[in-house]
Amino acid sequence: MIKVGIVGGTGYTGSELLRLLALHPHVELTAITSRGDAGTPVSDMFPSLRKKVDIHFTEPEIKNLKACDLVFFATPHGVAMAQAAELLQHGIRVVDLGADFRLKDTDEFAKWYGMPHSEPEILKQAVYGLIEVNREQVKNARLVGLAGCYPTAVQLGLKPLLSAAKPLINEQSIVADCKSGVSGAGRKASVPMLFAEASESFKAYGVGGHRHLPEIEQGLRNMSQRPVQMTFTPHLVPMVRGILATIYVQLNEEGCNTDLQALYEQHYSKEFFVDVMPKGSMPDTKSVRGSNFLRLAVHRPQGRNTAVILSVIDNLVKGAAGQAVQAMNVMFDLPEHTGLEQLPMSP
Amino acid sequence: MIKVGIVGGTGYTGSELLRLLALHPHVELTAITSRGDAGTPVSDMFPSLRKKVDIHFTEPEIKNLKACDLVFFATPHGVAMAQAAELLQHGIRVVDLGADFRLKDTDEFAKWYGMPHSEPEILKQAVYGLIEVNREQVKNARLVGLAGCYPTAVQLGLKPLLSAAKPLINEQSIVADCKSGVSGAGRKASVPMLFAEASESFKAYGVGGHRHLPEIEQGLRNMSQRPVQMTFTPHLVPMVRGILATIYVQLNEEGCNTDLQALYEQHYSKEFFVDVMPKGSMPDTKSVRGSNFLRLAVHRPQGRNTAVILSVIDNLVKGAAGQAVQAMNVMFDLPEHTGLEQLPMSP
Amino acid sequence: MIKVGIVGGTGYTGSELLRLLALHPHVELTAITSRGDAGTPVSDMFPSLRKKVDIHFTEPEIKNLKACDLVFFATPHGVAMAQAAELLQHGIRVVDLGADFRLKDTDEFAKWYGMPHSEPEILKQAVYGLIEVNREQVKNARLVGLAGCYPTAVQLGLKPLLSAAKPLINEQSIVADCKSGVSGAGRKASVPMLFAEASESFKAYGVGGHRHLPEIEQGLRNMSQRPVQMTFTPHLVPMVRGILATIYVQLNEEGCNTDLQALYEQHYSKEFFVDVMPKGSMPDTKSVRGSNFLRLAVHRPQGRNTAVILSVIDNLVKGAAGQAVQAMNVMFDLPEHTGLEQLPMSP
Amino acid sequence: MIKVGIVGGTGYTGSELLRLLALHPHVELTAITSRGDAGTPVSDMFPSLRKKVDIHFTEPEIKNLKACDLVFFATPHGVAMAQAAELLQHGIRVVDLGADFRLKDTDEFAKWYGMPHSEPEILKQAVYGLIEVNREQVKNARLVGLAGCYPTAVQLGLKPLLSAAKPLINEQSIVADCKSGVSGAGRKASVPMLFAEASESFKAYGVGGHRHLPEIEQGLRNMSQRPVQMTFTPHLVPMVRGILATIYVQLNEEGCNTDLQALYEQHYSKEFFVDVMPKGSMPDTKSVRGSNFLRLAVHRPQGRNTAVILSVIDNLVKGAAGQAVQAMNVMFDLPEHTGLEQLPMSP
Repeated sequence: MIKVGIVGGTGYTGSELLRLLALHPHVELTAITSRGDAGTPVSDMFPSLRKKVDIHFTEPEIKNLKACDLVFFATPHGVAMAQAAELLQHGIRVVDLGADFRLKDTDEFAKWYGMPHSEPEILKQAVYGLIEVNREQVKNARLVGLAGCYPTAVQLGLKPLLSAAKPLINEQSIVADCKSGVSGAGRKASVPMLFAEASESFKAYGVGGHRHLPEIEQGLRNMSQRPVQMTFTPHLVPMVRGILATIYVQLNEEGCNTDLQALYEQHYSKEFFVDVMPKGSMPDTKSVRGSNFLRLAVHRPQGRNTAVILSVIDNLVKGAAGQAVQAMNVMFDLPEHTGLEQLPMSP
Repeated sequence: MIKVGIVGGTGYTGSELLRLLALHPHVELTAITSRGDAGTPVSDMFPSLRKKVDIHFTEPEIKNLKACDLVFFATPHGVAMAQAAELLQHGIRVVDLGADFRLKDTDEFAKWYGMPHSEPEILKQAVYGLIEVNREQVKNARLVGLAGCYPTAVQLGLKPLLSAAKPLINEQSIVADCKSGVSGAGRKASVPMLFAEASESFKAYGVGGHRHLPEIEQGLRNMSQRPVQMTFTPHLVPMVRGILATIYVQLNEEGCNTDLQALYEQHYSKEFFVDVMPKGSMPDTKSVRGSNFLRLAVHRPQGRNTAVILSVIDNLVKGAAGQAVQAMNVMFDLPEHTGLEQLPMSP
Repeated sequence: MIKVGIVGGTGYTGSELLRLLALHPHVELTAITSRGDAGTPVSDMFPSLRKKVDIHFTEPEIKNLKACDLVFFATPHGVAMAQAAELLQHGIRVVDLGADFRLKDTDEFAKWYGMPHSEPEILKQAVYGLIEVNREQVKNARLVGLAGCYPTAVQLGLKPLLSAAKPLINEQSIVADCKSGVSGAGRKASVPMLFAEASESFKAYGVGGHRHLPEIEQGLRNMSQRPVQMTFTPHLVPMVRGILATIYVQLNEEGCNTDLQALYEQHYSKEFFVDVMPKGSMPDTKSVRGSNFLRLAVHRPQGRNTAVILSVIDNLVKGAAGQAVQAMNVMFDLPEHTGLEQLPMSP
Repeated sequence: MIKVGIVGGTGYTGSELLRLLALHPHVELTAITSRGDAGTPVSDMFPSLRKKVDIHFTEPEIKNLKACDLVFFATPHGVAMAQAAELLQHGIRVVDLGADFRLKDTDEFAKWYGMPHSEPEILKQAVYGLIEVNREQVKNARLVGLAGCYPTAVQLGLKPLLSAAKPLINEQSIVADCKSGVSGAGRKASVPMLFAEASESFKAYGVGGHRHLPEIEQGLRNMSQRPVQMTFTPHLVPMVRGILATIYVQLNEEGCNTDLQALYEQHYSKEFFVDVMPKGSMPDTKSVRGSNFLRLAVHRPQGRNTAVILSVIDNLVKGAAGQAVQAMNVMFDLPEHTGLEQLPMSP
């Protein structure tokens, strides 16, 4: 059994980790911490876990975590950074679902997150946790900076195009118009996320600049080994879970002569969690809700030279907790889908 | 492995059966029928099942079902009635998720369902499928008429009171004010169930009379062995899944002197799927969504003599497909929660 | 022109007042106050009012309000109480949309609102603002304590029964099972009202006791001039606007012999805003959304002796801002529906 | 008073016309037709109109319409085409909210709508009903082919850029990623539009080709007098009303040197219904819900050469019924906002 700890278990990614880990056959949930709620039974905060999860929140101190083999951080940026070193010294492996170990460039981190990176040395050993891209590195990682939700949907949507030997698209003018359910904003009180505000409405946010942009561009550059520029616009959908990325690329001549459907199918033929749908499909977010699947479709409207890629995930699963469990499985040499076999809940 | 067939797999209870059975360790899904969609891959209709369920719909003929050990009917009333005899003759056990084998009184059936009951003899052997009430009979049943969704929430909400040795309440003036998500109306095109109509609105329906009333009253009479009369008002909630029954009972002197919380906790102490919540709780439907749990709370507002019972289930799981799997587990001597361990999805 | 001020204009009842008053032909919006947002243009907070409302929030001081003929308080309890005396002394009429002047019994107020009533003398002159009950008194009122949202739906739903000469029902065992959209909880940040929490879920709240219970019972006693006892259970509906009250009454012999449909139609035949629907109707909240109408239906299921009354309003309009404008119209001798003619928005 | 008729009053655009026209001070609603529901009171189908609209549906025959000054067609394509000639001959002016008179090229019409255009001569006199573009022509129009919902949001979003003297953008690679509430799909029974299917989900549709694409490209070409090419992807949002168009354009050098905010503000400074929001704004659809306003914002993320325009409308108002009333006001020389002053309903 893998002894697992969770730091910051009172948010949506934390409770989703609990939902998934409670049924994982090789995991023993050893500790879950919350500074504000230490002493409270987890199932008092999340009645959905009653009769199945019966541990209490504890203080986020090392003594409560040092029995663990692996600790997940489901915390705002800055927290994992401050605690990772000590855990790693104790030989505990760390998966950060937050943003502290995603960007390799500490200047970029400081610019987008408004704080200096306090652990540049540790950052260097961190592996970017997007399994379908970095599986081999994740296997031996001590520290994983898990990919963000939008970055997961967008990068896996573009990977077959950008990792091709010859450029297929204009890599300077990619557009990713992304839409997310409100759970992406987390479980904290705020007026704009009230039901009365967010329901029956739709809007863009972060148009001027969103923290996931540098993360995505870093990932795409690594894929293509060439400069990449993207316009990224996130939107808020009046639903709880789900991301749809609608990605627009300008095909060059090579791209226009490529069978994109075949390219995508072939590229992902061995990936358990990536489903390239039949030509002409338009995946909806409900078809992946509650599951770790990502579904993809590629279109070339009117036969013109703009291709449109549709990529859907559940932001709390493949975009966070599910991907974290997938990383853990890889790190502990378990079949990748262990504990992740639940089917999407539809309707 | 239990070889299972599903007749009528294109509705929400059918697809929910598929979601649950696909992960059941002792089930082999042998056949799924649909008159209108024979030949179609199931996952074409339900993309959420892609990569996991790869059978096709077939015609609902005996030849397609006779290899089964058990057949579920997820069909409108009248269908199971017409086909059950033949299946039973082949030694196949039958669980009807529809209404054909719930009411024991064929006159009542004819009155509420607008058609005569064609199989009164078979009806006699049918066991009413509400496991927490009828577990022993279900074990050996050849034919189960599974409880309806509202009847499950209401009967289990009242069971501790009505099965007490002495009457605790006025059994002639029970009120069950019930609320259900729209999936209860099934997966068929209709204007009132359109998103634009049903969202951002709330209404009662069937106030003058609903088919679940005679079913509930039959069940309550069986519990108390006395006459019972209930006013039952269903309402439509702008959500997909979930039922909340708010039940009002007038306590008699015996009832006023009873510790209701203790009564409920004791009554259900051994039931895996029934969760009597702590005093003062107000369970929400999301806390059971996607799971087979029923959560209950008992209140006595202002210390007056009206008690209020709150009972929540997921109408598609404990109110239909999950309860069907639970019945199957009992019938085949498996641990009752086999394949039903998924935790509620929240948020 | 009536010069109108609003104290506490940053909540939903405040912004709804703005929406209605902006089109009222006899109103000049003179001041709107907010302690926290003084100086901010109203349309910065509520972009929906851009191009139509161009005043700023000011401090809630008397100097900013003394030019008004009428001041609406759209504030939490305790605020109107503290400021009403001064305004009244300046000859300004006051309509409190909050709870300070609803309960006539100051002990009851203290018990339910957790604070003593600081203005018992002023309270005595306050008129309870439920126009269809108290029209004549409202005409000359200097101070109106506007009816709450649930109390409006429930009292008007029961008025024809309780104001009959002879008792028609058992007035000791009324049940009001009420359901409200989330805007009733106001525009303040809170986790349970987040979209991710409140959507796709349904629950009861305040089962042990809700502040609207004593208000309703006070009103019903005034109608019948006899003791009245009610069980009142509010529920939270995953929608923004709307209340449905489902009211259960036990008819006595006189009640059983009464044509309830005729009673209701006759009782409300002259009321512009009360719509008694045809026999058998089941009004939905969307049919009144955004309007000041209340729609009613009366049922007697199975011909038994329990009657079921369905009563729907928009909680922000007839349950708050619209009813406030209606009161103002009455107080200033305008046609009662002036500025309230907008039709419900459906879908 | 303008005598107005509506052909096809049972859909959402028809009922929205009724909601608006019922309060229009210069309109007398003379006839409303529905082949299937002739004889039914309008308020039986739309209870929200009870107490205000008391006419019946009649057959869509000329005798029922010939007393009208203006007839609105709120019908599927093909209907207005078949009846317009006769009405025009009787001197009745016609506004078609459907698609019959939008595309000037009959081959394009035949290609996208799957039927030949039966009235090419009448089509020639038709004026495209997008008031902010064609106000002068609409004034004297006998026949208006009202702009579609997406085309309204997209064309007005791009007009300042495309009608500039010199090209500011690459007019060959515009991307319009558009999102609409479900009311855009109309009031007809269909499984994908059921609440249980469309809620808690998000998807693209018509990616391969949507009928609004040729309409938009036609309009943009007319603005710029140059060739224009756009990729247009509509999406379905789990809400009832509202469209957000997120439009991406590649600025050329001239464009990069232009103050886009000033350009937009100046361009629309005299338009009552177009609200150019302050720099940095991100308008949500709720801020226009129920109203005829369109709100716009222009962004240039990261100072790169891609500009992002956000454009929101209520698809049933500015995208259909409101724009139709606006056209009528222009045609009958009334102030353009007559009867259209209702403020957005928020929350």
